[in-house]
Amino acid sequence: MRLSPPSWQRIEQASQWNAVYAGSEANVSASCCKLGMAATHVTVLPDDEIGEAAASTLRSYGINTAQVQRTPGRIGIYFYENAASVRSPKIIYDRFHSCFANIKPGSVDWEEAMAGADWFHWTGITPAVSEGAATVCKEALLAARKKGMKVSGDINYRRVLWQYGKSAREVMPEMISYCDLLVGGLEDFKNCIGIEDTSFEKACEKIVKQFPSVKKIATTHRETKSASHQFVDAVLWSKNSLLKSSRYELFPIVDRIGAGDAFMAGLIVGELSGKTDQQTLEFATAACALKHTIEGDVNLASAEEIESLMQNNNTGKLLR
Amino acid sequence: MRLSPPSWQRIEQASQWNAVYAGSEANVSASCCKLGMAATHVTVLPDDEIGEAAASTLRSYGINTAQVQRTPGRIGIYFYENAASVRSPKIIYDRFHSCFANIKPGSVDWEEAMAGADWFHWTGITPAVSEGAATVCKEALLAARKKGMKVSGDINYRRVLWQYGKSAREVMPEMISYCDLLVGGLEDFKNCIGIEDTSFEKACEKIVKQFPSVKKIATTHRETKSASHQFVDAVLWSKNSLLKSSRYELFPIVDRIGAGDAFMAGLIVGELSGKTDQQTLEFATAACALKHTIEGDVNLASAEEIESLMQNNNTGKLLR
Amino acid sequence: MRLSPPSWQRIEQASQWNAVYAGSEANVSASCCKLGMAATHVTVLPDDEIGEAAASTLRSYGINTAQVQRTPGRIGIYFYENAASVRSPKIIYDRFHSCFANIKPGSVDWEEAMAGADWFHWTGITPAVSEGAATVCKEALLAARKKGMKVSGDINYRRVLWQYGKSAREVMPEMISYCDLLVGGLEDFKNCIGIEDTSFEKACEKIVKQFPSVKKIATTHRETKSASHQFVDAVLWSKNSLLKSSRYELFPIVDRIGAGDAFMAGLIVGELSGKTDQQTLEFATAACALKHTIEGDVNLASAEEIESLMQNNNTGKLLR
Amino acid sequence: MRLSPPSWQRIEQASQWNAVYAGSEANVSASCCKLGMAATHVTVLPDDEIGEAAASTLRSYGINTAQVQRTPGRIGIYFYENAASVRSPKIIYDRFHSCFANIKPGSVDWEEAMAGADWFHWTGITPAVSEGAATVCKEALLAARKKGMKVSGDINYRRVLWQYGKSAREVMPEMISYCDLLVGGLEDFKNCIGIEDTSFEKACEKIVKQFPSVKKIATTHRETKSASHQFVDAVLWSKNSLLKSSRYELFPIVDRIGAGDAFMAGLIVGELSGKTDQQTLEFATAACALKHTIEGDVNLASAEEIESLMQNNNTGKLLR
Amino acid sequence: MRLSPPSWQRIEQASQWNAVYAGSEANVSASCCKLGMAATHVTVLPDDEIGEAAASTLRSYGINTAQVQRTPGRIGIYFYENAASVRSPKIIYDRFHSCFANIKPGSVDWEEAMAGADWFHWTGITPAVSEGAATVCKEALLAARKKGMKVSGDINYRRVLWQYGKSAREVMPEMISYCDLLVGGLEDFKNCIGIEDTSFEKACEKIVKQFPSVKKIATTHRETKSASHQFVDAVLWSKNSLLKSSRYELFPIVDRIGAGDAFMAGLIVGELSGKTDQQTLEFATAACALKHTIEGDVNLASAEEIESLMQNNNTGKLLR
Amino acid sequence: MRLSPPSWQRIEQASQWNAVYAGSEANVSASCCKLGMAATHVTVLPDDEIGEAAASTLRSYGINTAQVQRTPGRIGIYFYENAASVRSPKIIYDRFHSCFANIKPGSVDWEEAMAGADWFHWTGITPAVSEGAATVCKEALLAARKKGMKVSGDINYRRVLWQYGKSAREVMPEMISYCDLLVGGLEDFKNCIGIEDTSFEKACEKIVKQFPSVKKIATTHRETKSASHQFVDAVLWSKNSLLKSSRYELFPIVDRIGAGDAFMAGLIVGELSGKTDQQTLEFATAACALKHTIEGDVNLASAEEIESLMQNNNTGKLLR
Repeated sequence: MRLSPPSWQRIEQASQWNAVYAGSEANVSASCCKLGMAATHVTVLPDDEIGEAAASTLRSYGINTAQVQRTPGRIGIYFYENAASVRSPKIIYDRFHSCFANIKPGSVDWEEAMAGADWFHWTGITPAVSEGAATVCKEALLAARKKGMKVSGDINYRRVLWQYGKSAREVMPEMISYCDLLVGGLEDFKNCIGIEDTSFEKACEKIVKQFPSVKKIATTHRETKSASHQFVDAVLWSKNSLLKSSRYELFPIVDRIGAGDAFMAGLIVGELSGKTDQQTLEFATAACALKHTIEGDVNLASAEEIESLMQNNNTGKLLR
Repeated sequence: MRLSPPSWQRIEQASQWNAVYAGSEANVSASCCKLGMAATHVTVLPDDEIGEAAASTLRSYGINTAQVQRTPGRIGIYFYENAASVRSPKIIYDRFHSCFANIKPGSVDWEEAMAGADWFHWTGITPAVSEGAATVCKEALLAARKKGMKVSGDINYRRVLWQYGKSAREVMPEMISYCDLLVGGLEDFKNCIGIEDTSFEKACEKIVKQFPSVKKIATTHRETKSASHQFVDAVLWSKNSLLKSSRYELFPIVDRIGAGDAFMAGLIVGELSGKTDQQTLEFATAACALKHTIEGDVNLASAEEIESLMQNNNTGKLLR
Repeated sequence: MRLSPPSWQRIEQASQWNAVYAGSEANVSASCCKLGMAATHVTVLPDDEIGEAAASTLRSYGINTAQVQRTPGRIGIYFYENAASVRSPKIIYDRFHSCFANIKPGSVDWEEAMAGADWFHWTGITPAVSEGAATVCKEALLAARKKGMKVSGDINYRRVLWQYGKSAREVMPEMISYCDLLVGGLEDFKNCIGIEDTSFEKACEKIVKQFPSVKKIATTHRETKSASHQFVDAVLWSKNSLLKSSRYELFPIVDRIGAGDAFMAGLIVGELSGKTDQQTLEFATAACALKHTIEGDVNLASAEEIESLMQNNNTGKLLR
Repeated sequence: MRLSPPSWQRIEQASQWNAVYAGSEANVSASCCKLGMAATHVTVLPDDEIGEAAASTLRSYGINTAQVQRTPGRIGIYFYENAASVRSPKIIYDRFHSCFANIKPGSVDWEEAMAGADWFHWTGITPAVSEGAATVCKEALLAARKKGMKVSGDINYRRVLWQYGKSAREVMPEMISYCDLLVGGLEDFKNCIGIEDTSFEKACEKIVKQFPSVKKIATTHRETKSASHQFVDAVLWSKNSLLKSSRYELFPIVDRIGAGDAFMAGLIVGELSGKTDQQTLEFATAACALKHTIEGDVNLASAEEIESLMQNNNTGKLLR
Repeated sequence: MRLSPPSWQRIEQASQWNAVYAGSEANVSASCCKLGMAATHVTVLPDDEIGEAAASTLRSYGINTAQVQRTPGRIGIYFYENAASVRSPKIIYDRFHSCFANIKPGSVDWEEAMAGADWFHWTGITPAVSEGAATVCKEALLAARKKGMKVSGDINYRRVLWQYGKSAREVMPEMISYCDLLVGGLEDFKNCIGIEDTSFEKACEKIVKQFPSVKKIATTHRETKSASHQFVDAVLWSKNSLLKSSRYELFPIVDRIGAGDAFMAGLIVGELSGKTDQQTLEFATAACALKHTIEGDVNLASAEEIESLMQNNNTGKLLR
Repeated sequence: MRLSPPSWQRIEQASQWNAVYAGSEANVSASCCKLGMAATHVTVLPDDEIGEAAASTLRSYGINTAQVQRTPGRIGIYFYENAASVRSPKIIYDRFHSCFANIKPGSVDWEEAMAGADWFHWTGITPAVSEGAATVCKEALLAARKKGMKVSGDINYRRVLWQYGKSAREVMPEMISYCDLLVGGLEDFKNCIGIEDTSFEKACEKIVKQFPSVKKIATTHRETKSASHQFVDAVLWSKNSLLKSSRYELFPIVDRIGAGDAFMAGLIVGELSGKTDQQTLEFATAACALKHTIEGDVNLASAEEIESLMQNNNTGKLLR
C-alpha cells in the first residue's frame, strides 16, 4: 500500500493521502497484462478489507489472483512524498512484519500456480524481506526451471531490507543462477554477487561466465537535473555485445515510482512477443519513459503509445 | 460538456471528473465577453438540468442566452485526458445525436438574434455535425450578409465528424464565400475547398481569388516538444502580405484545449476595436498563448494581461 | 457510466462529478462475486479508454470479462443527482445509441459463455434498449434452457426505454416463459404480461399458471418518508404461499441506486447456496437494506455483514 | 463571499474552504430568476478578480448585472461553520469596510435601474451597514413609490450591524412606510419600529394601522430539535386574517443559510404570478423547506419541485 | 495515525484517505488543552517526517511535546471505516511493532516530565501493547503517587492487544491501585481485576473496597439504534452513591471515535476546576455528546459549547 | 490568512480555496523553529475560531504563542492566485482594519516577551500598516537594544500599505538604526531611507555609514523567465565586501510566496549557529530556493535538506 500526499504537499502538510496498492512484482504483472499478456501474481495479503482492496486492484488490471493467499496480519506500507525542482522526493518504508514477510515455505503449490505459464519473474526484494520469503522464492525458481520456463530477475538490491540474518551475498547467487534475463546495475552486482567492475559491459562478461544460464542483462540509466527534469536511457547486454537505447527527456516528471518495473515488463513482453533485442530494448525504454508521466506505481501506457513514442510520432501532440 | 480526469490521471484511473460546459463557438463568445464585447450565442441545449447547467455557464461569462433553444435530448460530450512530458493528451468524442445536431432549419429567428450585432462567427464544426446544423448555419450566413455584418469562419476541419452523407467539399465552399475573415491551415484548405499548396501565402492568394469576400486569413503554428513544452506563433494574411507574430514558449502547458478559440476571439476583438492588422495578430497570438495557462476551454485572460504579455512586461512576475 | 455531483450538490452546481461504471446486470454480477460466487458478465463496451475503465471495474469485483465485446461507439451514461430530506433524487438518462444497444445478434457464443455456469440472469432493461439486444437476450435464454440452467429475470419495466418499435407486451412474455425466478411488481406485470391485480399474491397465482416454468416471484416494498428516511421490506411468493421479510428502517440513505440489484443478487446467492425460501428472502432483503448505506451502484456488503444484520447483531455498533 | 469548511469540519480544522458569492438580496434575486422572473440586482463589488467572480455568479443565475458598480475595495465576507446533531452551526461576520458599505448616495440611477420593473425588494441589512447604504436604499424606495412599483422589505434586524451612529428605530420606520409586503417577526418589530406584542396577529394589526401602505406581513417559524432536525412553517397576515402554511419536517438539513431568502422569493413570485394568498404562502413555505436541502445560500429548487412538495407528491422519491 | 476513507466510502472504494494523528491519551491531552488546561504528553514517535507530522499535530492543540521521544521505527496505524444507518463502522488495527511499543524502561525522566503537574492520566491500552510500555507506565504511576498527584485511569480493556505474554489480570490490578478516578465498565472490571457483577453500583463498591485509593468511578452508556442514531448518557459513582447524567440523542453521528476520551477529559477538567460531582458528570457527558459531531478523534468543542448544551440552550440553533 | 484557488485555477473559477495562516514575520518564526531554534511570535489575532485556527497553526510549528493577543475583530486576508508559464501569479490584499493593525501601544510586555531571547526580527510591513503597529514595533526595538539582543529587519517596502498618514521615510530610519542585519534592495533603500545608488555595494557602504549599528546587509536576486521558470541567487554585504551565493534554477515553481522569509530565516539561523558569512549566505539562499518547491508561505525544508542542496548532493534524487 502506497500512501502519498496530494500534489506537492509534504508529509507534514498532508491531511488527505492518495492510496494505491502496488509492489515491484505486482507492477510488472499489471504492466504485462496491460500490454496484452496473461499474468498470475503470487503473494500474501491480509484477510481483511485492506487485503480485499489490494486484491481488487490486482484484479482490475486483469491479473489472475487465484494464487493470492489471505492471512491475518498487516500489509506492507510505504509513504511517498512527491517533489519538484530542487527538492528530492522521499520514501519512508513501513513494510516489516507484513503478511507477505510471514509467508510459509511450502504454502504455494507452484505446479498449479505455474500451469500454462512461459515465464517466471522475481525481484531481489522478495529474498530480502524474510527467510521464509527467500525460501518460497527459491521453491518457485526450482519449479520454474523444472518446467523449462524462462526466468527473469530484477536484482534490486536494497541494503535496508536485509535484516533477518542472512546477507544478499549468501542468498542471491544461487537464485541468480536460475535466471535467463537479469536487470541490475554495478551496485547490485557488487552487493549481491561480489562482481565489481567500473564497466557494465565487463561486469556482464563476468556474470555470464559465472552464471551460464544468464543470457541477457539490462539496466536503465537516469540523469537527474532535478526532481522534475531527468533523462533516461538503457542498455541491454546480449550475445556478447552491448545494445544502447534511445534517450528520453522527461520534464516534468509526474510520478517517479515504478519506472524500473515498467522497463522490466517491457523486456518481458518484448521477449515473449519475438522482438529483436534492439526492439525489445527500445520498447522497454520507451515504456519506462512513459511511466514517468503516469500517477501511481503501475505503467498504464498501452503498447500503441509505447510504439508511437519509440517512433517519435506525435510525442505530446493532442490525439483526437 | 467536457469531462476530464483531475491532474494527470488517465481515464482508467479517474473516479472523479472535472466538468466544464464549452464548445468552439461558445469559447469564442465567452472570450469576446471577457474582453469587453457583447455576445449572443445561438445553440440548442437539453431541456433538463444538464442543459440548465450549460446555460448557466454561458450566462456567467456575460453571454446573452436569449437565443438558446432548449429541447429534449442529450448534450454533446467529450472526454479529455490531460497529459505531460512524453505522453500525449487525448480526446474521446461522444457528440453524435445531441440536441444541437437535431436543430430544426428555420427554428432560429436570425433577424431577432442578430439585432444590433456587428459580427457573426461560425466554425466548420457546425456544418459537419448534421445536415440540419449545416442548413441553419447557412441561414445565419445569409442573414448576416443581408445585414452587412462582418463574418468570420474558423474552418476547423474534423474528418471524423462529416458522417451525415455530405462532404466538406460539397458544403463548405458556399459558406466560406460569405466570410470576411478566415482561420484555417493548409489541411483545412485542402479538405474543405480543394486548394492545395505547400505555402500558406500562396494558398491565401488562391483563396481570395476564389472567394472575393474573404479579406483576411490567419492561422496559428505550434511546435510541440512534448505535451508540456511547446511554442506557438501565428500569421495573418491581409492585403496581399503575410504578417508574422511574436513567438511564445509555453512550459508547462496547463490546458491544451481552446487555444484556437482564444486566437479567434483575439482576432475578432482586435478587428472590432480598430487595431492595425499587426496589432490584432499580436493581440490574438498573446491571447492564444495565455489560454494554455488556464484550466478549461475558455480563455479567462483579461485584455490587460494579454497586452502586458505582448509588451513582454512582467511575464510571470508576481503582481501585488 | 454513472456521473453524480458530490455530496448533495445539484447538477447545476457540480464542477466535479463522481463516476462509477455500473448497470443493473453488472451490479448483480458484482454482488454475486462479492458474496463468493463466480460470475461471467456478457456485454458490449467501447473499444476506447472509457470502455477499458469500465472493464477494469468489472474485473476488480472478480467478474469474468472474457465475454465482454469491445466495439467502436459510446457507453451509456446516466446522471444521478443525490438528494436529502424533502428533495427528491433524480436520474437523467443518456443511454441511447450505446455500443450495447448496437449488439449484433449471433455475436455471443453462448455455449462458451455459459460453460460451467448454473444460473443465468437477465433484466427487462436489455430487451427494452434495442431489437438487437432483445434478440441476443432471447438467444441466451434458449441456450440457458437447453443447458438446464436456472434462470432469473428482473422484469424492471421502464416505459421510457421501449422506443425501437416493439412493446414490452410483445417481447417480454416469451422471455419470461423461460424463467424460474422472477423479480417484479404489479406495474411490471401489467405492462409486460398484461396481468393486472391489486394483490401481489393473486397476480403471482396467475403468472405461474400462465408461465409454468416460473416457480418463485419476489419483490421489494419501499415506504418513503423522505429522500433520507425510508423503510424497506420484501415478499417472496413460492409454492403457493407468500413469505414476508423483516422490515428495515433506513436513515439516512447514503445512495439510493442499486438496491433492487442487491436484492436480486441476494436471492440468487440464497438459492444457489441451498438456503430455505425464508432464509433467502431475509438474506436478500438485508442485502437490499445494506446497499442503501454504500456509495455507488454495487452492493459491497459481505455475507457476514448481511447475516449480522439479519440476526440484528451489532447493527451500527463499532466493530474493532 | 461566504467561506465554509467542507462537510462538518470545524473552522479550526479547515485547510480547504468552499466559497460562494451570496447575500440576502442577491439570494432573493437569484431565486426569482430561477423561478422564471427577470431580476436586476443593484450592489457594489470590488473592481478586481474577486468582484468579477461575484458578478459572474450573479450572471450565472440570469440576474441582470448592468447596475452593479465596481469600485476599489474589499468584498464583505462571512465564515459559516456547518454543524450536525447537538452542535450549533456558526457564522463569523467580516463585512465591515466593504465596497458596498461605501456606496455613494446618488451613485445609482434608479430611473434606469428600475426601467420596466414591477417590484422592488430590500432588506434591513442594507440600511444597517452604513449611512451611505441607508441613504441609497431610501433613494430607491422613493423612486419605486414614484413609479408605482410594489415594494417588499425583509426587516431582518441584526443588532451587531447597526454601528454607524444611527439606530434601527431612527432609520427603519420611514423605510417600512414605503412597503406593501413585509417579512419580519416580533423581535424585528420591537427593534425596528417599537411595536411589541406577544401575538404576531396583534402586532400585524398595529403595524398596518401605523404603516397604511403595508398590506401583507409574513414570517416563518422554525422548531429546532437539533442542527440536523428541524420543522418549518409560516404565516401570512393579509386582509385582517392570519393564514397558516403546512409544516415541513427537515431531516437532515444540508445547509441552514438562505431559507428566509427562499421564502421571500417565494412570496414575491407568488404575488407576481397571481396566486391566492394561501397559495402564495404555501409556495413560499415549500420553497423555504426545499432550500434546506441545497448547498450554498441560493435556493436552486425549481417551481415544479416546489409545487410537487406542496402537493406532497413524490417527496423524496427517485425521479427518473 | 488514523486513516479513514472519505464520506461513507468503504475501505475497498477508497483512493483517498483522510489522515489524523491521534490516540486515546493524546485525545485526552488535546481536549484538556482545548478546555483551558496545560498538558504534557509523553510518548514515542518515529524520528522521520511521519513522526514530525504527529508531533506537529500535538503542538497545534497546545500540548507540551518536550517529553515526546523520537526513535527509528514505525507509527501505530488504524484504519477506520465510517458508516451510516444499518451498516456498522469498522476499525482495522495495525499498531504492533510501533516505536511506542518499543519504549525503553527508564527512558522517561518522570521527575522532569511531571514538574508542575497536578494530574496524571493513563489508559489500559498502554500496559497492553508491550511489556516495556507497561513498565514505563508503572514507573509513571509510582512517580505520580510520590509527587502526590491525582491519577486517573481509563481501563479500556482490548482483548486483542494483550499479546506479549502477560494478561491484564496480572498487570492491571497494581496499576489501578494507584488511581483516584477510574473510567471503566463491567466488562473491563471482569477482565482486568476479576470483579464480576451485573450492577455497576455494586461493582463499584467492590472496587473501592479492594482499591482504597480509588474514589470515583465513571462510565458512559450508549444505546445504538443504528450507526447514525444513538443515545448517550453516563454515571459517576462517588462517595457511595451513583449519579446519573442527562441523556443525549445523537442523530446523525458525524464521527464515532474518541467519545470516551472526550468524556475522560471532561471529568479531569471538571475535577480540576472544582465543579461538583454532578456538574462534572454533566460536563463530561455533554462533552462526550458533542464529540460525536466532530470529525477526527479529538473533541474540539469549547467549554462554552459544552455548557450551552448542558443548559439546553441553542442546541443546534444558528449562532451569529 | 491566505486563500488560494487550487492547482492553477483563476480566482473566477474557484469554488474551493486552500487556506493557510501566515505572514512575513510568522513565516520567519516558523522556519527558525523548523531549523531547530526556539521562537516566540508576537501578534494580535481575532478572539474567535479564525484566530484560534491561526494560533493553532503557529503552535504546530513549535512557535511559542504565549505573547499572541486575542481581541475582537478581523484577521488580515490575502487572496493568492498561482500561475504558470506566461501568466503572472497575483495577490489581492484585504488586510486593512485587522486586529493586528489595531494593536495598542504598551499592550506588549516586551520584558516578558523577550525573556531568554538572543535575537529580535521585524519587517517593514509592521510599521506600514498603522501608527499603532509602528509604535509597538519601536517599543520592541528599544527593548531589544536595551537587552543587547541582535536585531534583524527585513525592510520590505510596500507602497500600497503606507496609508495612515506617515511615510516610510519618516518612520523607517529610526527603526533601521537599531538593526544589526538588514535585508533589502535598492528600491527599499530609496523609499525608506532615501539612499539611492545603482550599485548594491555602494548603497551598503552609505547605509553602514549612516546607521553604524548595521553590520550586514543582504538581498536576493530573482531572474524571471516565466511564472514557472526562474533563477535565484543572493548577496551579503559584510565587513566591507560583497559575498555572492550560488545560483539555483527553479523549474517548476510550486509556490512563489515566502521565499524572502525563508532567506531571512536562513540568515538568522546561520548567524545564530556560528556559520561563516559565506556559509550563512549559501545556507539562506539554498533555503530560499527550496521554499519555491513547497506549498504555502512557510519553508518546511529541514536543515539537512538545505545542506544537501548546498552541497549539490542528491538534488532531485529519490531518497529511500
